[in-house]
Amino acid sequence: MKIAVIQMNTTADKAVNLAHMAELMDRARETGADLAVMPEMFPCLYTNRSFLANAECAGESIWQALSEAARKTGMYLIGGSFPEREGERIYNTSFVFDRSGTQIARHRKVHLFDVNFEGGQRFQESRTFTPGDDITVFDTEFGKLGLCICFDMRFPELARIMALEGAQVLFVPASFNMTTGPKHWELMFRSRAVDNQVFTVGCAPARDENGPYVSYANSIVVDPMGQVLARAGAEETILTVDLDLTEIAHTRAQLPLMPARRTDLYTIGRK
Amino acid sequence: MKIAVIQMNTTADKAVNLAHMAELMDRARETGADLAVMPEMFPCLYTNRSFLANAECAGESIWQALSEAARKTGMYLIGGSFPEREGERIYNTSFVFDRSGTQIARHRKVHLFDVNFEGGQRFQESRTFTPGDDITVFDTEFGKLGLCICFDMRFPELARIMALEGAQVLFVPASFNMTTGPKHWELMFRSRAVDNQVFTVGCAPARDENGPYVSYANSIVVDPMGQVLARAGAEETILTVDLDLTEIAHTRAQLPLMPARRTDLYTIGRK
Repeated sequence: MKIAVIQMNTTADKAVNLAHMAELMDRARETGADLAVMPEMFPCLYTNRSFLANAECAGESIWQALSEAARKTGMYLIGGSFPEREGERIYNTSFVFDRSGTQIARHRKVHLFDVNFEGGQRFQESRTFTPGDDITVFDTEFGKLGLCICFDMRFPELARIMALEGAQVLFVPASFNMTTGPKHWELMFRSRAVDNQVFTVGCAPARDENGPYVSYANSIVVDPMGQVLARAGAEETILTVDLDLTEIAHTRAQLPLMPARRTDLYTIGRK
Repeated sequence: MKIAVIQMNTTADKAVNLAHMAELMDRARETGADLAVMPEMFPCLYTNRSFLANAECAGESIWQALSEAARKTGMYLIGGSFPEREGERIYNTSFVFDRSGTQIARHRKVHLFDVNFEGGQRFQESRTFTPGDDITVFDTEFGKLGLCICFDMRFPELARIMALEGAQVLFVPASFNMTTGPKHWELMFRSRAVDNQVFTVGCAPARDENGPYVSYANSIVVDPMGQVLARAGAEETILTVDLDLTEIAHTRAQLPLMPARRTDLYTIGRK
């Protein structure tokens, strides 16, 4: 499975961002990728005001642009995320489309990003968003894949449950910042990969030092032994990586963690 | 709480190892430490044959030497581990003693180390050991502490449950090898610390390149933000570190992970 991780520059202008997404999808297709992933909140700036101003329902312009890009390129598309309106509520939602542009999955961020670092990053997503209420694993021609959004990945329960349900790759549209990114970004993607013996993929917006929220960027792809297969810098780029999914079984045969779990002593699962 | 992490040279001679342990405990006490931790299987070599030959019951010479070292130095002692015989069974067991030499906790390794790396480390602890059946959190004058042994730390469930039960520091007598050590040792101690916002401490035997099992050594102390506070090399050494336990609350106030867990969506706990 060849994937394209699109670390995109985002602007304050939704129409510009959607056109740029389509252009980057065309470039990703030229590499022969089967699946592309976009960053968290790629259609707008990362502020509560921008989330409100750019919120759309499923089926409206952002969703349509994503579906059309998947159909036109014939790639699976994990569509980053956008502020999804449903009635009075707004969610931070990632939609997934198959090669025909049909929606096949949806993840609404379940852990909202509320932090307050002394002298560092502060943010309260819960001022705008309602949290989702589902854990997301979906089927493709390559088998099962898992999906969560940014802060969700901080919680080992979620990655474990996705892996136990058969997810081979955990895709994470995300946007860490300059406080937590250098400390925890790579650590998190590597440790979830090693603990669960799966691939992990983080896709972030490119860094804009002058933006209201400075993305750490550093989009990353990690294999089941915790080796970093590809990692971006701060600039816009497309990481193209062949994932050899047989590495999962190969790793688990040598280091059999999953069957060694003491399910007689502890329990973990969906409630 | 000042801790001494004793990365000890071990030999094939149990009596020599016990005398050396006592001597290192005296040196640790001179640093003003409140608590010392010894490596996994410090009284013998790390082979199934050596485990069998050196197995002892609680109350026999190894247990007595540990209790006496705690009493004599007036430190808490997490006594690494040794092959503990009980009837027909042998466990990989860590005993904990208070400042008076009284046993206050016991952890029998619950996940046995059975791996088979192509061209790398192979081992089958389950040939000799029976796995334990408990998760270990115990009380001290500093509050609750958690304890597990080496391969146990590979399983995020165990660390999470110890943290949820109030453990502020996870102590891990351990002995990674030259295959998995460089790849996963630091990653594991840093990620468990960050995910659970606790301190983690790994204490390994010093490296003997000519021994039957080559310990990665690199004993390590990590704070709740994932920062490595101290790390040994390959040689025998004592790491002495002041743990400021107020850092736990300070970290959790800025990055409130524990209350953000979606206990309505997933469940984790003792069975």
